[in-house]
Amino acid sequence: MSLIQALNWRYATKRMNGEKVPPEKINTILEATRLSASSMGLQPYTILVIEDEELRQKIQKVANNQPQIVEASHLLVFAAWSNITEEQVTEYINHIAAERGVDPATLAGLKNALVGMVTRNTPEQNFQWAARQAYIAFGTAIAAAATEQVDATPMEGFNALALDELLNLKEKGLRSVTLLPLGYRDENNDWLAKQKKVRRTTDKLFLQVA
Amino acid sequence: MSLIQALNWRYATKRMNGEKVPPEKINTILEATRLSASSMGLQPYTILVIEDEELRQKIQKVANNQPQIVEASHLLVFAAWSNITEEQVTEYINHIAAERGVDPATLAGLKNALVGMVTRNTPEQNFQWAARQAYIAFGTAIAAAATEQVDATPMEGFNALALDELLNLKEKGLRSVTLLPLGYRDENNDWLAKQKKVRRTTDKLFLQVA
Repeated sequence: MSLIQALNWRYATKRMNGEKVPPEKINTILEATRLSASSMGLQPYTILVIEDEELRQKIQKVANNQPQIVEASHLLVFAAWSNITEEQVTEYINHIAAERGVDPATLAGLKNALVGMVTRNTPEQNFQWAARQAYIAFGTAIAAAATEQVDATPMEGFNALALDELLNLKEKGLRSVTLLPLGYRDENNDWLAKQKKVRRTTDKLFLQVA
Repeated sequence: MSLIQALNWRYATKRMNGEKVPPEKINTILEATRLSASSMGLQPYTILVIEDEELRQKIQKVANNQPQIVEASHLLVFAAWSNITEEQVTEYINHIAAERGVDPATLAGLKNALVGMVTRNTPEQNFQWAARQAYIAFGTAIAAAATEQVDATPMEGFNALALDELLNLKEKGLRSVTLLPLGYRDENNDWLAKQKKVRRTTDKLFLQVA
């Protein structure tokens, strides 16, 4: 199935049937997400992968009681770094150096660009920037789930502060930004399952400057 | 080629060779981008598709002189709506109703949720929210280019105010958020072409809550 076919197949599933997604499919979706692009490669976010049913019931309560959270097989919580520190940048630079077998000093240009940005910015600005990077990963995860024929519901409708408290994200230096339940559509009970997909038309969404 | 293989093949191309990308590949990348998920389906952004070389030379000057902007075949400019108005929401609701052949009144729940949000928020908050939606599309476009074996360079390093002025985005109710040159890698001149891809390891990027 091509990416276009997969994206046409997918939709924001409103009801799921509780079936478990096989681990190899979950791993493929996570691996695609891990390979996502991010500005300067930093990947300033953590993704929580939640199977535990009791915990998902608690999460549902701070997410407008949306049924997919408990009807899904797995719930991904995309959490951006609440700030970005010089230490995190140094750890990142050392990781690249180790992976490529080079002296970290050869990466001084990248390091200075990153340190300059994160120290110039307020913590809130760093978080907002990190959140945008998380949204690239989120977009990749949505596409990857579709190519694996796994249903998913991109979800912003939740109380982020309450969820952060529930998952102890503050202590981890994280703030939740978006959710992605993964599972299988319950075609008979999902009013959206058979509705025509609507997108902005090509002539409106794109502005061709030849 | 699977999505995982495509994402491993891609990298943030630093030098391109000027070769044109065939229109059918460009159209596939744009169509995947058009099919991207967005919160409540609004797609509150416009994507400029720029081939014109003189214009790209001007854009390069406000984008740290990055060579890919002119060495690419096409340049995508992701521009989020600078605010979201009730009129735009109404147009969106009418579009869904027309596509699905239903009375717009049946979509009152969605309309009220959207109007409530965009009138409660400041224009800046609406823009920031729209920018996040544009990043989902951006992530989809990056993945789609890779599956088409088209190189791309996700790019935040540009002067957004200067670019908005150059492209008259303010009058269009838009603000540029990110760039994506599309083209083909110049393997001999791109220092990054043969470097090992580095990503955060699975055990650090993901937090398994079983």
